[in-house]
Amino acid sequence: MKVAIFASGTELTRGELVNSNAAWLSERVTELGGEVIEHVAVDDDLERIQVALRRLSTEVDAIISTGGLGPTTDDLTTEAIAGVLGVPCFRDENTLDRMRARFAKFNRVMSPSNEKQADFPQGSAIILNEIGTAPGYRVLLNRATLFVFPGVPREMKPMFEQSFASSMAIQRTSTQLHLRTFGLPESAIGDRLAGLEAENPGVTIGYRAHFPEVEVKVFARADSEASALTLATKVAERVHERLAPHVYGGKADTLPKVLLREMQSAGKTLAIAESCTGGLVGHLLTHVPGSSKVLLADVVAYSNEAKTLFLGVPSELIAAHGAVSEPVACAMARGVREKTGATVGLAITGVAGPDGGSEEKPVGTVFLAVSTSEGEHCERRMFPWHRDFIQTIAAHAGLWKVRASLSQ
Amino acid sequence: MKVAIFASGTELTRGELVNSNAAWLSERVTELGGEVIEHVAVDDDLERIQVALRRLSTEVDAIISTGGLGPTTDDLTTEAIAGVLGVPCFRDENTLDRMRARFAKFNRVMSPSNEKQADFPQGSAIILNEIGTAPGYRVLLNRATLFVFPGVPREMKPMFEQSFASSMAIQRTSTQLHLRTFGLPESAIGDRLAGLEAENPGVTIGYRAHFPEVEVKVFARADSEASALTLATKVAERVHERLAPHVYGGKADTLPKVLLREMQSAGKTLAIAESCTGGLVGHLLTHVPGSSKVLLADVVAYSNEAKTLFLGVPSELIAAHGAVSEPVACAMARGVREKTGATVGLAITGVAGPDGGSEEKPVGTVFLAVSTSEGEHCERRMFPWHRDFIQTIAAHAGLWKVRASLSQ
Repeated sequence: MKVAIFASGTELTRGELVNSNAAWLSERVTELGGEVIEHVAVDDDLERIQVALRRLSTEVDAIISTGGLGPTTDDLTTEAIAGVLGVPCFRDENTLDRMRARFAKFNRVMSPSNEKQADFPQGSAIILNEIGTAPGYRVLLNRATLFVFPGVPREMKPMFEQSFASSMAIQRTSTQLHLRTFGLPESAIGDRLAGLEAENPGVTIGYRAHFPEVEVKVFARADSEASALTLATKVAERVHERLAPHVYGGKADTLPKVLLREMQSAGKTLAIAESCTGGLVGHLLTHVPGSSKVLLADVVAYSNEAKTLFLGVPSELIAAHGAVSEPVACAMARGVREKTGATVGLAITGVAGPDGGSEEKPVGTVFLAVSTSEGEHCERRMFPWHRDFIQTIAAHAGLWKVRASLSQ
Repeated sequence: MKVAIFASGTELTRGELVNSNAAWLSERVTELGGEVIEHVAVDDDLERIQVALRRLSTEVDAIISTGGLGPTTDDLTTEAIAGVLGVPCFRDENTLDRMRARFAKFNRVMSPSNEKQADFPQGSAIILNEIGTAPGYRVLLNRATLFVFPGVPREMKPMFEQSFASSMAIQRTSTQLHLRTFGLPESAIGDRLAGLEAENPGVTIGYRAHFPEVEVKVFARADSEASALTLATKVAERVHERLAPHVYGGKADTLPKVLLREMQSAGKTLAIAESCTGGLVGHLLTHVPGSSKVLLADVVAYSNEAKTLFLGVPSELIAAHGAVSEPVACAMARGVREKTGATVGLAITGVAGPDGGSEEKPVGTVFLAVSTSEGEHCERRMFPWHRDFIQTIAAHAGLWKVRASLSQ
């Protein structure tokens, strides 16, 4: 099944908005076994919308359109589609009632311009919007089925699932599994997984690098969805083995989530002392609801005085070894653990740059220390990137190190 | 000048990568006075690339293409273009030499597959790539000038500037100014700026909402670039007046950068005590190089015990008022300021949710306190969003409050 993703909106062609809908829809269509062959976005111009839709409707089996369903004069999608079809629009009273009820609920007055959001090209089937004002619809255009959704992602996504995705599900013969990894570059993952596709006909392995992680996607096509799932599961197990211990979870997981879950179920608590990562470790963890059950405190001891004051790191130790050193990292991790009474202490100190590097400790040098009742373990790492990336990977490497310590 | 943005890459049509290049290029072309009328992305399919480029080349004055210049068999852009033009490719020896030198510099061996990156369709003018391997080029295709760049953003952007942008600059009669704002919703900004466009012919005002901020863009077109700049500057001053005090900077500014700059030049230092924002304030500040000159420490006192231990908040105070309260916020701000000897202390405590809300203090309730030698000032805010947004806006509101305290 060939699919095109279409969008209209001058906010896209002026670069005021990134067309993230196109990527999300493409990923979902691919997962469902469809093949996206083209993305098109045009500005809010009636003729250009029509030319694009007319062209795509002869080239693909389905077009997914987002945007242009709002109440303003810029919103032209429905008018354009009716024009291409050569049919009038009908006003749906049921939709009007739902819209009026929605406005009443939020104590707002529905303006006359909203009424056009209840207009649909003759022959179309309405797709309900449970979250926003504008419903979508499905209509046949030449050889293509055209799905029309609003551009707001949180409205569009459930509407896609209840219409396009569920109609695809009936005939699904494919599936996709996701494995999240940390600690191996994409090229190394590719090397380790070499040959897996050839050994397993019907399987495609994809990668999505999202610094500092790489997601591995195992896509399988077979006679039925069930046998596709069996095939994908078998191959995902091979991937797991070949990449061990770098796979930490599935699609819905993140490293902070997994770590918090594992620590909570082991009855452990965490305290952090950050320097060069400047609060990022704390932010990554506290982004997750319920993190307060595990995380007791995070001290961003940016100055040397703060390291002594809050973490009890002796100023002589800093003077002797420098703030970026193994002894100071260990003292920070031990200090924050002992002060807070946490089970595990994590410390990160390094040179994030662009200044502050030396020959001995160039920009990118980071010491990661974990402290438990057994003692401290520190490692020196070198992350040869710029400030942003150094902070990001150091924070993740810190979480990874805590996770590794749990199983020791 | 009508422009189309083209990209090839199955990683785009499979949704593995968001086409952020299209948005960046569209914004720059718009700033330069061009009009982007279409974005197209197709998968790595020779025929589809050719069909798309042939079509666009009769509809626009310029096509900007990204991607498909790599060394692998998937990289088909140059072959496709030569095919559309009906010309052979030439191999550029100068480019080959540069590539060999580049590989040697990184101690890598250049593989034979890389050689095709030195091939260009006859008639094209090479555009140097100072950062990566693959050069780009410019070539005439029907009525359009086609600019071909690699897909890697940090390679593509400087190549765009040195070719497309500088050729446009000669005939530029427009300019765009950016004003960054915080604290007003987009609708309120629109209301305050109503009428400005009508009063100033040639001026278009655009908005880019990037939670929790809104950027206002003043685009002006006139007889020359100089008069466009005069016009844009005049209108930007009106925008400034109408939105005061919510405008904090221009295109290259961020709130953390501006705050750090202002504090540094005033000789002030900052210490932070965070609870519900969990390290985000520290992360936003330490993301900026040189932040250590201002930021002394950031204590993420997530547990009540940590508030007492690190910040000296009396446990009786927490017991009497709750951790999310004005007295505790003030005590946190004062505590972190006094302990570190910073000029200013900032504290944020609130309910980020999804749990922990009460009738008196529902999810989204946040107390922001600033402490100086003059005393403490606290305000209670309500941010009616979900966890992610509550943390983000609370962190920015905290920075904003510190900034407001500087001028008092």
